[in-house]
Amino acid sequence: MPTITTVDVVDVRFPTSATLDGSDAMNPDGDYSAAYVILGTDADHSGYGLTFTIGRGTDLCVAAARQIAAPLVGRDVGEVTSDLGGLYREIMSDSQMRWLGPEKGVVHLAAAAVLNAAWDLAARSAGKPLWRLISDMTPAELVAACDFRYLTDVLTPDEAIEMLEKLAPTREQRIADLAVRGYPAYTTSPGWLGYSDDKLRRLCKEAVEEGWTHVKLKVGANLEDDVRRLGIAREELGDRTLMMDANQVWDVPQAIDWVNRLAPFGPLWIEEPTSPDDVLGHARIRQAVAPVGVATGEHAHNRVMFKQLLQAGAIDFCQIDSCRLASVNEIVPILLMAAKFGVPVCPHAGGVGLCEIVQHLSVVDYVCVSGTLDGRVLEYVDHLHEHFTDPVRIDAGRYRLPELPGYSTRMHSESVDTYRYPDGRHWSQGV
Amino acid sequence: MPTITTVDVVDVRFPTSATLDGSDAMNPDGDYSAAYVILGTDADHSGYGLTFTIGRGTDLCVAAARQIAAPLVGRDVGEVTSDLGGLYREIMSDSQMRWLGPEKGVVHLAAAAVLNAAWDLAARSAGKPLWRLISDMTPAELVAACDFRYLTDVLTPDEAIEMLEKLAPTREQRIADLAVRGYPAYTTSPGWLGYSDDKLRRLCKEAVEEGWTHVKLKVGANLEDDVRRLGIAREELGDRTLMMDANQVWDVPQAIDWVNRLAPFGPLWIEEPTSPDDVLGHARIRQAVAPVGVATGEHAHNRVMFKQLLQAGAIDFCQIDSCRLASVNEIVPILLMAAKFGVPVCPHAGGVGLCEIVQHLSVVDYVCVSGTLDGRVLEYVDHLHEHFTDPVRIDAGRYRLPELPGYSTRMHSESVDTYRYPDGRHWSQGV
Repeated sequence: MPTITTVDVVDVRFPTSATLDGSDAMNPDGDYSAAYVILGTDADHSGYGLTFTIGRGTDLCVAAARQIAAPLVGRDVGEVTSDLGGLYREIMSDSQMRWLGPEKGVVHLAAAAVLNAAWDLAARSAGKPLWRLISDMTPAELVAACDFRYLTDVLTPDEAIEMLEKLAPTREQRIADLAVRGYPAYTTSPGWLGYSDDKLRRLCKEAVEEGWTHVKLKVGANLEDDVRRLGIAREELGDRTLMMDANQVWDVPQAIDWVNRLAPFGPLWIEEPTSPDDVLGHARIRQAVAPVGVATGEHAHNRVMFKQLLQAGAIDFCQIDSCRLASVNEIVPILLMAAKFGVPVCPHAGGVGLCEIVQHLSVVDYVCVSGTLDGRVLEYVDHLHEHFTDPVRIDAGRYRLPELPGYSTRMHSESVDTYRYPDGRHWSQGV
Repeated sequence: MPTITTVDVVDVRFPTSATLDGSDAMNPDGDYSAAYVILGTDADHSGYGLTFTIGRGTDLCVAAARQIAAPLVGRDVGEVTSDLGGLYREIMSDSQMRWLGPEKGVVHLAAAAVLNAAWDLAARSAGKPLWRLISDMTPAELVAACDFRYLTDVLTPDEAIEMLEKLAPTREQRIADLAVRGYPAYTTSPGWLGYSDDKLRRLCKEAVEEGWTHVKLKVGANLEDDVRRLGIAREELGDRTLMMDANQVWDVPQAIDWVNRLAPFGPLWIEEPTSPDDVLGHARIRQAVAPVGVATGEHAHNRVMFKQLLQAGAIDFCQIDSCRLASVNEIVPILLMAAKFGVPVCPHAGGVGLCEIVQHLSVVDYVCVSGTLDGRVLEYVDHLHEHFTDPVRIDAGRYRLPELPGYSTRMHSESVDTYRYPDGRHWSQGV
């Protein structure tokens, strides 16, 4: 029987701070990084997973992931991959590690990396892209892999099965549709805060030429700068859609004032206007800045936070993060709750590998959970894809359906060797 | 000028799982532990601080605290201790570490340990117990040390100063009152879930004999057991006050059913009925189980969560945790918000050193912030105090006012040497 023989967790850091790629009002100089998990097996396939970080502290996620994944060594691959719900529950029920959260921060990020690797291993072992592995599961099988703890006041497993069963007969039609049309997306690449006005204008122009219909800009450091930058973007984009992202810099009253000053530029949403923990604050902001929508979620740390964001009517767009939430097991219940509340899921992406990962989740949302593309746009950022063996493919502002087996989470060995911190060639020799 | 010369962070673990001290419905077998920070100086006083953990993963908090505290080496003691607000902001503004929270989980626990040590150093340097150091600060000085970020929709710094100024002239009266009467407390020592019925009965009897008026029991693993155990406790306690603690085991509907089944025993509160993240869930439970009160907070990870628990009318009792929140800087704003909403603060204690720490905070609440003892009871658990150089003193169910300089956070060197993990004598030699 094929067995998991090794667990490797690597601290990989890319020197993005040098070019200010990824710069925003809260994060001026991140080095986009990952705690990268490899579940080695004696079979043909290993499992690859990661959680995304931005520099210092990646080592903490690495150490946590090593502890969480260590018990997997020696386990039968088939047993692990056929009961990913069991693996999830095993990881979450370690009460000593749970104390450090619960279900948030470093231990949850690390759990995400390990579970992402386990789902990747399952998909590779089945010879299917992850979205296809899930689309081939029955509603009961998928629900059995999911965590509904603390959610049953809003959604029970039985209700989830009922929702999934309604859409199951038509799954293949939507897959065929995606194969032809791809999944709608938006780009954040032009809008980093550290870019000059000229670079912003040039990148907006290029985005239009490449067929993008939705572009997102970072805001929130300086109001006059924001007015000028949004003006430039609006000039170049014409009547295309513009979004704004403040990365948590405002208090609630300040968010309301600032967004209302920028509202004349007609943005679709303001993203992360305040603390990601502030459900009630988001609800108040949403009431005060309509028709500008409110989007958040990339720092919402678990399914309980999303439950409340939906219950409180706090968001117009639900931005799950594939590396902060504990993988498919926790994310599918959020997709289901969002569908129940009629809120479109527009995942957070960019970073390291997030585009690669979330494309599978958005396909699952469309094919299995919500059955619609209405209001959905999946984030795209044009960097670091070259480090992945199965990078995303974009065509005229839409994601192409992933075709290779797995969760698209595997990095090139050469990239890992070069950017391994602190002993990889880049960091130790400056190359 | 006296300088901080060293930062030591030690992984200290006590083998409490052997006796089931600390056992509850979520945490059956914790080894009560601490990431213990020592800020060494070339002056007469060093600073000691900790965050409380329950076993595995303490090493993660240790590693994070080392990273957070490292920049303190070489700094002037006077500069650090005279601007603890500045130190707090410096720690919180490391955006790369912030990504791993923000302000939650391992990095926030570690920040708490470091800041607790810095406040201890300040108090020792001033030759005062921490509560006295704070009571001697002007309202403006105290507010300058506090973090109001994300709170200003509920409480602004100016409003905080106004609140503190109202009570400033009468601070000494309340200190004199505490010196005579002590601070009211309750005991959790009899009620751990792993204890037999006989042990529960014996400990309840002893609690009554010792003068305790309030006793808390763990519940939530098995309803019939809870009914039987509460019956025993009620028999022994007579008309004294009984509280219950479920340690997050229930979903919202289950919490409502279960608590209503236990309501006939007349408990004052149900503590942690569900996920600590579920503000709206707590609000719904509170409405459905009145007159049983709802208490939570030991796992509420930052001031934004407390803001919402108060805004949503979700709690009758506000249970701050002195090692999960980022020390005095974050806790005083919570005391202020609770006072504004008229909710009594009854801190979480027990663990390792939590009683030692929170006694100072409850004194600050009474003397500086709320001006009242109404509805306040401070948790007490009778274990591990022998490891501290300035342990709490209890007299007839009340805390005596701490008198020695510092935050009462220093452990005996002998204890640290013995229980240092994994190389201390207990763990390496089994003694």
